[in-house]
Amino acid sequence: MRIALLGAGNLATNLGKALKNKGVEVVQVYSRTKESASALADILSCPYVTAIDAICCDADLYIVALKDSALAEMAVQIVNRNEGALFVHTAGSMPMDTLPCEHRGVFYPMQTFSKTKEVDFSEIPIFIEAQYEKDLLVLKQLANTLSRSVYELNSENRKYLHLSAVFCCNFANHCFAIGERILKEHGGVPFEVMLPLIDETARKLHSLSPQEGQTGPAVRWDENVIGKQLSLLDDEPVMQEIYKLMSKSIHSNFT
Amino acid sequence: MRIALLGAGNLATNLGKALKNKGVEVVQVYSRTKESASALADILSCPYVTAIDAICCDADLYIVALKDSALAEMAVQIVNRNEGALFVHTAGSMPMDTLPCEHRGVFYPMQTFSKTKEVDFSEIPIFIEAQYEKDLLVLKQLANTLSRSVYELNSENRKYLHLSAVFCCNFANHCFAIGERILKEHGGVPFEVMLPLIDETARKLHSLSPQEGQTGPAVRWDENVIGKQLSLLDDEPVMQEIYKLMSKSIHSNFT
Repeated sequence: MRIALLGAGNLATNLGKALKNKGVEVVQVYSRTKESASALADILSCPYVTAIDAICCDADLYIVALKDSALAEMAVQIVNRNEGALFVHTAGSMPMDTLPCEHRGVFYPMQTFSKTKEVDFSEIPIFIEAQYEKDLLVLKQLANTLSRSVYELNSENRKYLHLSAVFCCNFANHCFAIGERILKEHGGVPFEVMLPLIDETARKLHSLSPQEGQTGPAVRWDENVIGKQLSLLDDEPVMQEIYKLMSKSIHSNFT
Repeated sequence: MRIALLGAGNLATNLGKALKNKGVEVVQVYSRTKESASALADILSCPYVTAIDAICCDADLYIVALKDSALAEMAVQIVNRNEGALFVHTAGSMPMDTLPCEHRGVFYPMQTFSKTKEVDFSEIPIFIEAQYEKDLLVLKQLANTLSRSVYELNSENRKYLHLSAVFCCNFANHCFAIGERILKEHGGVPFEVMLPLIDETARKLHSLSPQEGQTGPAVRWDENVIGKQLSLLDDEPVMQEIYKLMSKSIHSNFT
């Protein structure tokens, strides 16, 4: 199978590496910026192009791993490169029909990718969807090559999956970033001291649900501590607002 | 050294077990509720009491691991049990002088404790403070018996440490709880699929700071995705508010 990889960002880079590790060849990389395109093509030992017109017309599978905004905009031009081929995108939040072609699908590896951080792809759940059963089988086979957890999921449910991932990953990480900032500004304790607590907070979820494992002043509704902590944030209105809202939400149990 | 452990909640239970594992004897457990007191006393093979008047007068060290609110209220009665002894509390958010006695200190193991979840105490940072250098040495020795990371920290800086921990643990965990709830209500994907993502989000912090590792629609300021995700939360005003505020805070980088 000839695979073209369109995009050279965090996801494309990690996916490309995982394909290479499993002996699956990528025949071409596309990225608008030469720097990204050539960096990834180097890793994958394949040619790259920086113009949509130059994307090859003879791949069997086009994996479109562009920014969600670029994806919608460029979809028509991309699928025009080869009308008979299978096109898939990798965006959790975008419906399958963002791709205006007959053979279309979604190949969404749900993980937080950074270019400089290697991940073990075999642990990453991959959510697939396709217009045709035959194409779904192609995607399932490819996904099974990369990962132990492969799920079929339609666009409607994937929207909520992606929303859940934004809370579980992006917003949780922002809580860590706020924690880091508080430490940096007060007392000079290095952020590393938080790692055992953060690791345990994540590890705990393997045996307790997040609701069962909730601890802290908000779940106890300890108004004395909550009041004092809010006043420590008097100079940080956004953090103070986040503190209030999260405490309220924990206490009221989502109601 | 004769240690009395006052409290039988999550922290007291985990601390008691860790002391026992290291061969440090607890001579008495106190808790207001018989059920908790006897459960922990059973584990530690020691007697328990449920009245403050019955707390022994001959311990060398009293570890007061009560709820922050109960601590302030009961401190006077507790320290009256033995004027010469060393009293410490375990509350990250409370200043040392909550204990109205001469020999006082703080012994704060920073971790999220649940009674049913065993933790490896040797990894838990313990923050200590004492009024007198001699008492600090006693606490340091005890802390070193339990953990590889022991830090001295005064009450003022510990307030911020604890605030940081609330964000890194309690609020991050609430993000997981919201993620779980979204999945439960839409599409029936089990929460377990989030664990690789959550594990990686935590693991990443060992090599990238949370700010460097931030991903997702908010840091890219992808207004299309943000708008669509907000509309998925139309029936969940608190979650929608959290989504808005977190996205804004990620995007503006705390300003």
